[in-house]
Parts: sequence; C-alpha cells; structure tokens
Amino acid sequence: MNRASSAESLKTIAKLAADVAAGDRRALARAITLVESTKENDQKAAESLLTALLPRTGRSVRIGISGPPGVGKSTFIETFGQYLSELKKRIAVFAIDPSSRRSGGSILGDKTRMERLSRDPNAYIRPSPAGTTLGGVARRTRESMLVAEAAGFDVVLVETVGIGQSETAVADMTDLFVVLVAPAGGDDLQGIKRGVMELADLLIVTKADGELAPVARRTEADYRMAMYLMQPKHAGLPTKVVTVSARENVGIKESWLAISGLHNTLRADGRLARLREAQLRRWFWSEIQSVVSEKILAHPKLAMEARRYESEIVEGKTLPFVAARQLITDVF
Amino acid sequence: MNRASSAESLKTIAKLAADVAAGDRRALARAITLVESTKENDQKAAESLLTALLPRTGRSVRIGISGPPGVGKSTFIETFGQYLSELKKRIAVFAIDPSSRRSGGSILGDKTRMERLSRDPNAYIRPSPAGTTLGGVARRTRESMLVAEAAGFDVVLVETVGIGQSETAVADMTDLFVVLVAPAGGDDLQGIKRGVMELADLLIVTKADGELAPVARRTEADYRMAMYLMQPKHAGLPTKVVTVSARENVGIKESWLAISGLHNTLRADGRLARLREAQLRRWFWSEIQSVVSEKILAHPKLAMEARRYESEIVEGKTLPFVAARQLITDVF
Repeated sequence: MNRASSAESLKTIAKLAADVAAGDRRALARAITLVESTKENDQKAAESLLTALLPRTGRSVRIGISGPPGVGKSTFIETFGQYLSELKKRIAVFAIDPSSRRSGGSILGDKTRMERLSRDPNAYIRPSPAGTTLGGVARRTRESMLVAEAAGFDVVLVETVGIGQSETAVADMTDLFVVLVAPAGGDDLQGIKRGVMELADLLIVTKADGELAPVARRTEADYRMAMYLMQPKHAGLPTKVVTVSARENVGIKESWLAISGLHNTLRADGRLARLREAQLRRWFWSEIQSVVSEKILAHPKLAMEARRYESEIVEGKTLPFVAARQLITDVF
Repeated sequence: MNRASSAESLKTIAKLAADVAAGDRRALARAITLVESTKENDQKAAESLLTALLPRTGRSVRIGISGPPGVGKSTFIETFGQYLSELKKRIAVFAIDPSSRRSGGSILGDKTRMERLSRDPNAYIRPSPAGTTLGGVARRTRESMLVAEAAGFDVVLVETVGIGQSETAVADMTDLFVVLVAPAGGDDLQGIKRGVMELADLLIVTKADGELAPVARRTEADYRMAMYLMQPKHAGLPTKVVTVSARENVGIKESWLAISGLHNTLRADGRLARLREAQLRRWFWSEIQSVVSEKILAHPKLAMEARRYESEIVEGKTLPFVAARQLITDVF
C-alpha cells in the first residue's frame, strides 16, 4: 500500500471492499490486517475501506463474552460456534487482550483451543491485535467487527480476557454481554469481578457435567438470586442464568435462545437501535478525548506541563480544575 | 467581590480562609456559596480561597451514600449524624442532585427532613447547589468538601439521589460508598441499581423495626449471599451488610464501626492514599476533557461541526475515529 499512488491505492481499496462484501475469506483477513496496522498510510487506506463498507454493517448479533481464566471460555465458544454453524449461521470471533503480542501465545493459543471451530467454513477466528493500550486494541476491534459484518457474518463475538477495564470496553461495542461463571461454592468460589456483574445480560454456569453437575445447579440458583437483588439491565427483562456443559452439549441451544430472544426483543422495541446510537456517540466523544490526550502527551512542552500539574495535584499543591484550565488555555 | 479591587479582594479571601480554618460557621457558609457561584469573578476568588485552604484538607472520613427514594436516607443520616455528634465528631452533609433548583424543594426538604441534625452545632448540612449538569454540581461538591475539611469537620458525607451517573461521581470523590436498601422480598423488591452494587463498601438494610424487622433480617442474609458471589471491592476485605433501625437506634453504632474500621484499615495499609491519588489524577484528566468539550461546544463553528459529525456517525455515514481526528485537527 505504501508505494502505490493515490489513484492505484483507491482502486485497490475498492477491490478489497468488493471482495470482502462478496465473502472472500482472504480479502477479509487482509482487510482486518489493514485495519489493525499502525502505519499511517495503512490507517488512511483503512479509513477509506471502512467508509466503503459502512453501509453493509450493523446486521449482526454483537455478543461480548467474559469470564475468569479457566472458566471454559474457549470450550464454550467452540461448541457454541459449531451449534450456530449447524443452524447455517456464520460466526466471527475476536479477542480483546491488551497484553497480547503477535509473537506471543495469542494466535497459537486461540487456534489450538478452538481447533475444530477454526476449520469450520462458517467461522472466522481472529486473535487480538498486538497493542499495548486497551484504547488502541478496542478501536481496532470495533473496526474489525464492522469488516466482519460487511462480510456477512451473522454473529460477531468478542471475547475479553478481563484485564483492567476491557469488559467495559467490550460491553460498549456489543449488543449483549455474556458472563461465564465456574461451578463452585464455599472457599472455591472466585466470585464475579465487580463492575462485570452489572454488565451481564446473561450468566452462563459452565462445566455442568460429571461431579460438577450438582455444584453447577446450586451455582445457577445462587446467581439467579443475586441477579434478582439487582435491577435488570433492561427494564422488564430479568437477567437469565443458564447452565451448560460444552462437553455434553447441554445448554448450548438454551444459551443461543436466551441471546437471540433478548436481541429480538431489544430490536423490536427500538432499544437496540438506541443502544447502538448511544455507543456511537460515546465512541465519538471518547475518540475526541483520546486524540486530545495524545496531542498533549505528544507535545514535549505540554506533556511536561501536564506531568508537572499532575504531581502538584497529587501533592495537594494545586486543584485539578485550576490546572486543567491552565493547561487547556496553553493548548488552544 | 465583583467591585473590590484585586488587592482588597485578596485580603478578603485571606480573611475568609482564616475564618473558615478557625471554624466560623458563617464564614464556612460564605466560602461554600463562593465556591458554588458560577460568576467568573467569584470563580477566580474561589480558586484563591481553595488554594489557600488546600494544606488543611484531606483529614476527614469521606463517605458517599446512596439509595432509592423512600429507603430512609435522610432518617439514617440524621440518626447517624447525631450519633457522631455524641462521639464529639463533627459531620458535614452535602447532596449531589443535578435536578435541584435553589427555588425548589432541596433546601427546605433537607432542612425539614434532617431537622434535629441541622440544629446540632457539630453538624453542617448543605443542600445541592443549583445546576443542570452533573459535572458542574460534582465539581462544586468536591470543592465544598475541601472547604468543610479545612473547617475541621471529621466526617464529610455526600448523599446522592441516584440520578444517572451521580453515584459514580460521588464514589469518585469519597473514600467509602454506602448503599442503603429497603427490607423487601418477592414482588416488592426494588433491587439495587446496576452499577451501584459494584461501588458498595457497605450495605445497610434500613427500617429493621416492627413488622419489617424479620423481612430486614432476610434481606440482610440475601444481600450477604449476593456480595459473596462478587469479588470484594478491596481485596481481602469482604463487603459487610448491616441492618439498622433509625427509629429504634439499632445498628447505627455498627454502621460507624464498619465504616471507620474499613477506613482505618485502608489508611494503615496505604490503599486510602493510593485511592485518593488516583481520584485526583482522574479528576484532572476529566476536567481537561470537560474543558475541551466546553471549548468545542462554546465555539459556534466547532460546535456545529461536532453536531454534524455526530449525526453522520449515528446515520452510519462516517466513523467516530475519523470524525474525531478531523474535528481535533480543526481545533488545534
């Protein structure tokens, strides 16, 4: 892309967009690689590509999925994806993992963990892009989701490894948020991370087979009670709790029925449209804010000034409001 | 203040700061009125005042308190405040209510509802400042809290009526967040608002007297179970649930022991200092962001541009990231 002239580049982008829309898997992979690139020329090309694809986006069920390490996320996604494939639905799987590196375990890990799903022609699995900041990874994942939608995927699933604020970021780019919980009680109970419970549209208790089956049923009852003590995320639609065994293929259909049922309700009554509109507005203003922060930190004098103000604030020598106003006056 | 010359004004501010520090109640009220003022001259004077008072701040226990209408917030605060007064502790009470108006019910409401506490020489009750935006009210409440601390109050309590994101704002300006819950079960159960459960350092079940006493005990057990299913806010410190009857003066001492115990632990192990430092940093960057948003929206051409981009984004014609970059390029 770098060496191509502007006209050639535009032609290439138009071709790539057409190929993505036609469902060409190699074009899809190339398009996402372009979106993930941090090179400035690639970013301009990615903008043109995404703008060309925009009219074809928005038709998938966007699902966020979260759970602690070892809860069985990959096993669930593999079984769930294969079930959707049997229904002739196409599923794209992305991961948000700000700590991942291209050379690290992410690609191999995902491919190995979801071995059968990764070979399914109805599925597309993409590991997390390399990147150190959540903001960067999140933006590229949002944009990759749009590419997958333009390529005709019916379900776009974003998995988060649950570092820092990644669940909030994933919940803000998806329609529904699913939280996986391991069957446990007493001292074994890990508990759901604060701030994640409130995001849940559906709770899934995993590993409900063998010895853990009765524990899973108790865990389901416990969480049903806990959800009952909180107001539902969407008024009038209580948060469901489903127990699954990916190994025995139990509860997978029920999970999809809960997800698609809620999605249909929210779409029919207009709440889905309002939710997505609010997400877009927040995305816009948060981009403005991160561009401003980047500009400040990229500018040696302003960055030094910001750091100095921060120290003075923490030391109780100046007020955040006063410092912010002075800094912004220097920016404008 | 408006007509005073700069030198006179500085002298007045120094006098006011000294009077506040000496515990003069009328000076305290005048200082807070100055902090709440939206006039530009007053804001400059308020900045000088707050900067003068800063070294005297930080020594109180900062408590946020929330609960649905009718749960008994005022009754609890009145009884709790009188208990603290008996312990020779001085308590200042603020309210965050973005919907309140000076001419509205807020002042009279609070004074009437907390009649005895408002006459207690160890207590100071200040209703929510008038203001339409949460951001504005929140900033002035933060600054008023600093004034109260400089005036030597031992406990600063901020009550929120629970509109929109006000709980998050209050939790981010206090050390501990207390959530009040009414005794109920079955269809009567209102449930805790999503997003509030995760903020709670302490849950208090109110109205544990008369017929409601057994219901309150069941509610306490239910919420204890629910808290157990979530990771505690502070690692190793499980969230406590206390049952109180303000009418029968039961559980008030236990509430204070839970609050002061947690506060002492967090202070001793350094987590309180880190929490406050993180709050100050967030305050600084969120002020920067709100000043930028204000600047954009106050600038006719940029404001129009921002609105146009927003519409295009919502209509699926442009991408948030692209629009944000273009807008900021026009700003700088």
